[in-house]
Amino acid sequence: AAPKEARPAKVQELHVYEINERDRESPAYLRLSAKQTENALGDLVPFTNKLYNGSLDKRLGITAGICVLIQHVPERNGDRYEAIYSFYFGDHGHITVQGPYLTYEESYLAVTGGSGVFEGVYGQVKLNQIVFPFKIFYTFYLKGIPDLPRELLCTPVPPSPTVEPTPAAKAAEPHATVNNFTN
Amino acid sequence: AAPKEARPAKVQELHVYEINERDRESPAYLRLSAKQTENALGDLVPFTNKLYNGSLDKRLGITAGICVLIQHVPERNGDRYEAIYSFYFGDHGHITVQGPYLTYEESYLAVTGGSGVFEGVYGQVKLNQIVFPFKIFYTFYLKGIPDLPRELLCTPVPPSPTVEPTPAAKAAEPHATVNNFTN
Amino acid sequence: AAPKEARPAKVQELHVYEINERDRESPAYLRLSAKQTENALGDLVPFTNKLYNGSLDKRLGITAGICVLIQHVPERNGDRYEAIYSFYFGDHGHITVQGPYLTYEESYLAVTGGSGVFEGVYGQVKLNQIVFPFKIFYTFYLKGIPDLPRELLCTPVPPSPTVEPTPAAKAAEPHATVNNFTN
Repeated sequence: AAPKEARPAKVQELHVYEINERDRESPAYLRLSAKQTENALGDLVPFTNKLYNGSLDKRLGITAGICVLIQHVPERNGDRYEAIYSFYFGDHGHITVQGPYLTYEESYLAVTGGSGVFEGVYGQVKLNQIVFPFKIFYTFYLKGIPDLPRELLCTPVPPSPTVEPTPAAKAAEPHATVNNFTN
Repeated sequence: AAPKEARPAKVQELHVYEINERDRESPAYLRLSAKQTENALGDLVPFTNKLYNGSLDKRLGITAGICVLIQHVPERNGDRYEAIYSFYFGDHGHITVQGPYLTYEESYLAVTGGSGVFEGVYGQVKLNQIVFPFKIFYTFYLKGIPDLPRELLCTPVPPSPTVEPTPAAKAAEPHATVNNFTN
Repeated sequence: AAPKEARPAKVQELHVYEINERDRESPAYLRLSAKQTENALGDLVPFTNKLYNGSLDKRLGITAGICVLIQHVPERNGDRYEAIYSFYFGDHGHITVQGPYLTYEESYLAVTGGSGVFEGVYGQVKLNQIVFPFKIFYTFYLKGIPDLPRELLCTPVPPSPTVEPTPAAKAAEPHATVNNFTN
């Protein structure tokens, strides 16, 4: 009999890169805390970056959301944020996530839902920061959805500080984007 | 055998209207971005509006949450927001959603969870803007929950700029509200 | 045959206390509304408090997130917030929630996801305020996950204004914390 304590599910991995190409006026660091001399609770950081597939040869869309600064961590020379945002994949839909963004180490966020081909998705996502705050590599562990579209699957480029999207993907040439890529 | 790649689920449709009757001091447009002359990343928009059923003869409750301005889109004379909010249905509970709110076209948001009769819900919701930013028609596609209460089901009034709640619903007369409608 | 309309699930209860020990500079009340004389839509409240198990003899981690003020409720001498936050349990992972926080009565929030042992979780959580805004008792009703780790299970101390963590838990002594408790 099927187990009753857990939802039936196979795990599908999805790799993406989030890259800040400094052309979206992002992030907007709102220094709203009473403490003006260093990052502190009260600061808010709306952001939106570009999203590429793991092999960096296809532009998918954007990320969009907000980071809530929770704690400045001087001993790690960084910060803890609570991050609430979405990943947009053009006509394929979007994935929503929430959880910890630590500027000094990797973390896992919750996948809270999705639309389009991601309708009904759940699971988690590993955030692997490469160059703060400009390049982040993500591995999604997705459940609850049919097989992912083939164009979202790929062999990822291993994360390193020098990775770059292909010129065609960066220029969002038609053959190097998903349909109606989010921009 | 039951499929293992997707959660077993039937889809239930739920229609509601969100209406800003200008009596809740909503939205609160917080112009926090560095760019003061037009909407830009950094602006935040907490909001709360009234919620009616799809046939506009019953007051259900309110919406409540925040829109994060992601991008001003001059060529569409509008804006892209990341919206994070809840729909409140009085004693029936609430539904949480997250996703794109585009002031110039319809969009789909993720249903991320719920309470009460919506406990365990997932799926997506279509946002159909009628009169920006005062009247929005939503169609929820809900999974993972038992049959919806009959009083939430209805034949919706077709969306148009002139739709209005019935006077009884607008006045929140007892026969024209759900139990302990959220206010 | 298994029902197709609902996800198979048993409910697991998890009890925790959230305590503000006034050592995290939390909450950060951001009075951003146009109305400066009382709480109003437009105000935002990032926060982070300490998290203990229900028997108050183990430090688990922290809470982290934001409350969006929706409505000042003078007749209840309180406020309605839309709360979006996470509960952190050290190496065990985290749980994300969203829903109503009413300063004057208990409420139910949606559990929208999780990581680690909480990967794939859904359900709801009851928020029981004891001493505003310093002590809150929560009962999670969790579904979709394997059996909770035994160290998270306990017989809760009945909520009352005088409850306090044990000195060992408060001091985060190694035997009175979970592994790598979030701080």
